[in-house]
Amino acid sequence: MGGTILLTSRCPEFKTPEGVRKAAQNLAANHVDGLVVIGGDGSFRGALELSRETDTLIVGVPATIDNDVYGTDETVGFDTAVNTAVAEIDKIRDTAVSHERVFVVEVMGRRRGFLALAVGLTVGAEVILVPEAPLNMEEVYKTIRENAAKGKRSGIIVAAEGVGDTRKIARQIEENTGAEVRLSIVGYAQRGGSPTARSRLLASLFAEEAIRLITQGVGNRVVALQKGTITNISLQESCKNQKQLDTRLLELAKTLAT
Amino acid sequence: MGGTILLTSRCPEFKTPEGVRKAAQNLAANHVDGLVVIGGDGSFRGALELSRETDTLIVGVPATIDNDVYGTDETVGFDTAVNTAVAEIDKIRDTAVSHERVFVVEVMGRRRGFLALAVGLTVGAEVILVPEAPLNMEEVYKTIRENAAKGKRSGIIVAAEGVGDTRKIARQIEENTGAEVRLSIVGYAQRGGSPTARSRLLASLFAEEAIRLITQGVGNRVVALQKGTITNISLQESCKNQKQLDTRLLELAKTLAT
Amino acid sequence: MGGTILLTSRCPEFKTPEGVRKAAQNLAANHVDGLVVIGGDGSFRGALELSRETDTLIVGVPATIDNDVYGTDETVGFDTAVNTAVAEIDKIRDTAVSHERVFVVEVMGRRRGFLALAVGLTVGAEVILVPEAPLNMEEVYKTIRENAAKGKRSGIIVAAEGVGDTRKIARQIEENTGAEVRLSIVGYAQRGGSPTARSRLLASLFAEEAIRLITQGVGNRVVALQKGTITNISLQESCKNQKQLDTRLLELAKTLAT
Amino acid sequence: MGGTILLTSRCPEFKTPEGVRKAAQNLAANHVDGLVVIGGDGSFRGALELSRETDTLIVGVPATIDNDVYGTDETVGFDTAVNTAVAEIDKIRDTAVSHERVFVVEVMGRRRGFLALAVGLTVGAEVILVPEAPLNMEEVYKTIRENAAKGKRSGIIVAAEGVGDTRKIARQIEENTGAEVRLSIVGYAQRGGSPTARSRLLASLFAEEAIRLITQGVGNRVVALQKGTITNISLQESCKNQKQLDTRLLELAKTLAT
Repeated sequence: MGGTILLTSRCPEFKTPEGVRKAAQNLAANHVDGLVVIGGDGSFRGALELSRETDTLIVGVPATIDNDVYGTDETVGFDTAVNTAVAEIDKIRDTAVSHERVFVVEVMGRRRGFLALAVGLTVGAEVILVPEAPLNMEEVYKTIRENAAKGKRSGIIVAAEGVGDTRKIARQIEENTGAEVRLSIVGYAQRGGSPTARSRLLASLFAEEAIRLITQGVGNRVVALQKGTITNISLQESCKNQKQLDTRLLELAKTLAT
Repeated sequence: MGGTILLTSRCPEFKTPEGVRKAAQNLAANHVDGLVVIGGDGSFRGALELSRETDTLIVGVPATIDNDVYGTDETVGFDTAVNTAVAEIDKIRDTAVSHERVFVVEVMGRRRGFLALAVGLTVGAEVILVPEAPLNMEEVYKTIRENAAKGKRSGIIVAAEGVGDTRKIARQIEENTGAEVRLSIVGYAQRGGSPTARSRLLASLFAEEAIRLITQGVGNRVVALQKGTITNISLQESCKNQKQLDTRLLELAKTLAT
Repeated sequence: MGGTILLTSRCPEFKTPEGVRKAAQNLAANHVDGLVVIGGDGSFRGALELSRETDTLIVGVPATIDNDVYGTDETVGFDTAVNTAVAEIDKIRDTAVSHERVFVVEVMGRRRGFLALAVGLTVGAEVILVPEAPLNMEEVYKTIRENAAKGKRSGIIVAAEGVGDTRKIARQIEENTGAEVRLSIVGYAQRGGSPTARSRLLASLFAEEAIRLITQGVGNRVVALQKGTITNISLQESCKNQKQLDTRLLELAKTLAT
Repeated sequence: MGGTILLTSRCPEFKTPEGVRKAAQNLAANHVDGLVVIGGDGSFRGALELSRETDTLIVGVPATIDNDVYGTDETVGFDTAVNTAVAEIDKIRDTAVSHERVFVVEVMGRRRGFLALAVGLTVGAEVILVPEAPLNMEEVYKTIRENAAKGKRSGIIVAAEGVGDTRKIARQIEENTGAEVRLSIVGYAQRGGSPTARSRLLASLFAEEAIRLITQGVGNRVVALQKGTITNISLQESCKNQKQLDTRLLELAKTLAT
């Protein structure tokens, strides 16, 4: 299940200084020694605010399907969401090929394209659209037209929801290329389901590291996976920086699709 | 894979009398003794047209995720599509419950609600919307409000695509009930994927019956499953009648969801 | 999850007259008006014993992966178990084909072959072995040898566990045909996992019927699916008779595999 | 599908010096510039033999569910096999818990325990048995007995096939602990099925690297994943060394299971 953070989740009050202070008082009143915050970017920013008002040790565990936490190569849930979207596109590909259609498949990612990129690479998408790269519709048309000229009339375009109105994008492609285009929105299924082995194992390894830190009296850290190794970074550093998308992989995707 | 019919699929020409005659001539020229048409309503109407111009024996095998072929209790692919949608809603339910949200889940079915009804019954949907029943938004609001009053703030509304603009329906529910509502469109994945055991077995049994008919010199039939038994009905009868949705099941669904 | 019956499951004491009387006394002392027994053959025989000592209304709901309850065409869980075994054999078929091997795949069914037959038919098994038919190894060898002569060196033999020592059967086939033979035991996974749409829907329909019976004051019945319709039969009748395997389907299986 | 190596697979002749020389002559006669060998340990040893007799550039791509190739953190197919076994154990766990049974689950791995360790860690197995650690039955009994004393009567023991006769191990546990013990062999399904996103992506990245090497005129290499980065190592080095199992993870597994 998509987990929700202890205390901070869906609590508009927490977004005010008063709310944060009240949370800190609750921690003190209940003699909470350590607090493990499980979530993404937003949760960690809340945790950072809270850390300034409390002595409770705070450790973040990156768990979000967006994979957009700075300092860790992967977040808990990302591999699960990728596999869910890939399994869905496998099924869509059946119709795409048999009916010679182009599918725009919208995956989650309002601001970041990590999920779209991983999914697109994995399914060999003809086009991958991410919020980090400017949307160049002419280039999209060109790819679809060139594929059609080579006899390949089906195609998968993976688009992060943040790239714009995918309904409009699908219509524009249809009007400008003559291809029959359909839209599919993978949606909230990406946030649920039984986790993959990798997501579960990462959760276990992260949990072990978080508990190790707190029992050693270390706080204000975010546990992380870096180059295959479990480690931890400063909570402040994780909040202040933005994780970069590896744009080299967009180039690789073009090679794989041809 | 979503199969496409031999000869008739995606052929606008076939929709004209000339196209049908040309097809009949092709069958004659190639000495085709028997033709098995695999598909749904539309394919069978095409087959009926063709049957008037040819001596080739024509037998229909009902294969469509819509389950809307008159004379058979089930079509090949229906069980697969139901399971695909159910598996997706299982994943969506995770988010619905953890975030206390109501989800409108659109499943396929432009004119008929067989898929929506089976899916809704299976997942215990709080509301099922099918094209065969008038859309009563007040009743939908009432169900959502009553559930909320009982402390159940999450919910699944399964809607066949034919009931109207589901985006608008989701927004109206949000505005009239105060619930947080999200839309999910299961989409074309329902038409693909590895078939379930039941869909495969039905395909085998239908195939056996179709071949039995043709080798016995019988044409203008549609193979069918009736009350658990493989049989066949007249092609004309299947085309002329409309399969009825069992509305008693909509009542059962209300009982199951409470 | 594989459900266990209220009260009766895994209770050796219940197998004695004293145990049954004690259970009846418990029902009386707790003023239990109705008891729904969910299970298979064994559970229903226990229910029948109990029914002779109590006034509590007893209704059976057939739920077993063995599908061996007389009077119902299908039991809750059967479709799930079939799909689990079929999905596993799909994966095994990959190795069978790429390595040109024959696989003996043992599925559950100590005394009955319903599961083996449905699985074997669905996957197009080259051979299906069920406890209801005498084990004819010469015929198995012949089929494997004939397939090899036609260039088909891979194969799937689905065997119910009740046909004998599958390890020995696999070895005998290897020694008598020259084929490379491997054994795979699908095992207890068939009893678990998320239920299919059909298993869930059947459970809902059975539950509705069971409650309808009890609220109408009717006991000593087993709810059932007959020719696509929900109905019910006498508990005694269900216990006294043995469900027959449709051996015509074994013939169909041979046709499908060739 | 479980891939088979070009030329070398299942060819006993290749295991002789004459066979290798003949293969080298074939490569020369057909003017093969580059040869990509996809497989595990055994394939790469064959490739090393061949490399001594030919000028064709040889590059290895590690693809085996055993993950036992020295020099790479992961092989293509490993993540898929782990997920297949984990999904199966999820289903077995249903029966284990509802019937209070201990399951010995045998996973692949004749000589190495990478798969068993990853699977065991992921499912939170109570015991993990790998060929790299001496089999200490007394310790296994102790764990089962201590769990039972704490009220936990179900359990999962993941055992690599290489640890010994799992049927005997299951019986010994039953006799020495009083627990009801069942054996389940996951089997060849681990070698098949639709690959996970990670296995597919790794295959793409490895393929890109292999082609880059050959087009640059570099041979006798094995492509590899090291600390999250695609790289390559010497074919000879990969063949001469044995990959070590991270035994620290066996300790972690004990922590996770309690």
